Amino acid sequence: MMAERIGARMVALGDGFARGELDVTDDVRQPAGFLHGGALVTLADTVATIGAIGAAPPGRTVLTVNLTVAFTRPVRGGTIAAEARELHRGHELAVWDVTVRDGEGRLVAAVLATLSLRPWLTATGGGAPGGLSLTG
Amino acid sequence: MMAERIGARMVALGDGFARGELDVTDDVRQPAGFLHGGALVTLADTVATIGAIGAAPPGRTVLTVNLTVAFTRPVRGGTIAAEARELHRGHELAVWDVTVRDGEGRLVAAVLATLSLRPWLTATGGGAPGGLSLTG
Amino acid sequence: MMAERIGARMVALGDGFARGELDVTDDVRQPAGFLHGGALVTLADTVATIGAIGAAPPGRTVLTVNLTVAFTRPVRGGTIAAEARELHRGHELAVWDVTVRDGEGRLVAAVLATLSLRPWLTATGGGAPGGLSLTG
Amino acid sequence: MMAERIGARMVALGDGFARGELDVTDDVRQPAGFLHGGALVTLADTVATIGAIGAAPPGRTVLTVNLTVAFTRPVRGGTIAAEARELHRGHELAVWDVTVRDGEGRLVAAVLATLSLRPWLTATGGGAPGGLSLTG
Repeated sequence: MMAERIGARMVALGDGFARGELDVTDDVRQPAGFLHGGALVTLADTVATIGAIGAAPPGRTVLTVNLTVAFTRPVRGGTIAAEARELHRGHELAVWDVTVRDGEGRLVAAVLATLSLRPWLTATGGGAPGGLSLTG
Repeated sequence: MMAERIGARMVALGDGFARGELDVTDDVRQPAGFLHGGALVTLADTVATIGAIGAAPPGRTVLTVNLTVAFTRPVRGGTIAAEARELHRGHELAVWDVTVRDGEGRLVAAVLATLSLRPWLTATGGGAPGGLSLTG
Repeated sequence: MMAERIGARMVALGDGFARGELDVTDDVRQPAGFLHGGALVTLADTVATIGAIGAAPPGRTVLTVNLTVAFTRPVRGGTIAAEARELHRGHELAVWDVTVRDGEGRLVAAVLATLSLRPWLTATGGGAPGGLSLTG
Repeated sequence: MMAERIGARMVALGDGFARGELDVTDDVRQPAGFLHGGALVTLADTVATIGAIGAAPPGRTVLTVNLTVAFTRPVRGGTIAAEARELHRGHELAVWDVTVRDGEGRLVAAVLATLSLRPWLTATGGGAPGGLSLTG
């Protein structure tokens, strides 16, 4: 699994809230020595998705529809923490924001994510007749 | 390094153009069995950044300022390919788009990235006196 | 209507394609004398939405779910043109990009829009029993 | 001026904070009867920009570099209120978020904006020798 692969981990989960952490090691750096944006997004997308699964009715799959990241500070080391918060819970779409901070509490990125709450979709091909795939 | 960690690889680089690939193995999936959004972003951000480094004047560090992904199709397996194209080249900022397709050529995500072209910034703390950090 | 209010106008519409224009007059400038970002977005959102309505099955309402703009060049005057192109057409969501250029053909903004294709939704409150509102 | 043209108005301004309002009249609706996304963005971009001008050192022009909107609820009428909050203040870039609510306090959109804080730039062409345009 991707999150485990890079060491991203959940540390708290509540109603409309989720928090995760990632250690900034060489495994998640880019060649210039900073944390790779993709590693930060892996953490942010994971916490938002797990938060949204927790908030959704049973039997829903959560897929990210849209994700925007504003990077505010390059990260060299330490541990980053991502706090995800539900902004909106609809029938079909949810919106979460995620703030990512470094070990000194400074903002390193702000994320806005729109998530789809979908019935029945599985990677192995199940789902209702007629299909409810993201793409039709 | 993050890109190597998940198997993302560059396959072509030109003027205002870059292309990379990623195999969709268990290492980059999320628990529901689909490609993790963070893995897709790792590939997309890597190709856009390498493309922008190639297009920038010598001595510049490229850092992503903003990245938006519209996910259009969940990916179960195969190899995805990301093609990055320069839309704008300014003194301080560049804008690239990246289209990500699955092995059958179907769009799986569209990405818009704003990149900062910065002198002297290094992860080990160098830089010009007076500072040119992203954050002040 | 908003588009007419600021002088935004459609000039072409095809399958998966739409084009519109806006004159940069004082009505659409901000106090520093540049085109207001909101005016540019009004044009871009209008052409993408009209394009998506043209591409959707009959009886659908198109609502913008997510819109990202990367601004690349401040605009002082002349006429801007927005070209919208369909990147993805699903059952429930469509993705369009819009490139906005000034009178000399220079890119002034790149836009990525995710649009919802919804049955029955009207501003006056109609719709199917059980509701298909964007928000539940 | 664009904001006045559609009736967008500032109602409060503080350190790292700004608030504005817009009445949802026919002037700012789209043909289906909902508030046009471009009108909402005009309000949101205006309050974030005015907030960032207030927070920036003297002599800076603020230009929006990137703006993302997640629309969560279509708006039919009443007055919407946009609250902008500074997330990050750097030397060259600032990041603000804006939450937009309807008259009943329900979230209608979440906005994430990256703003450039630039010296000397004016629409009438001034600026320092050597140029500090957004685009080079």
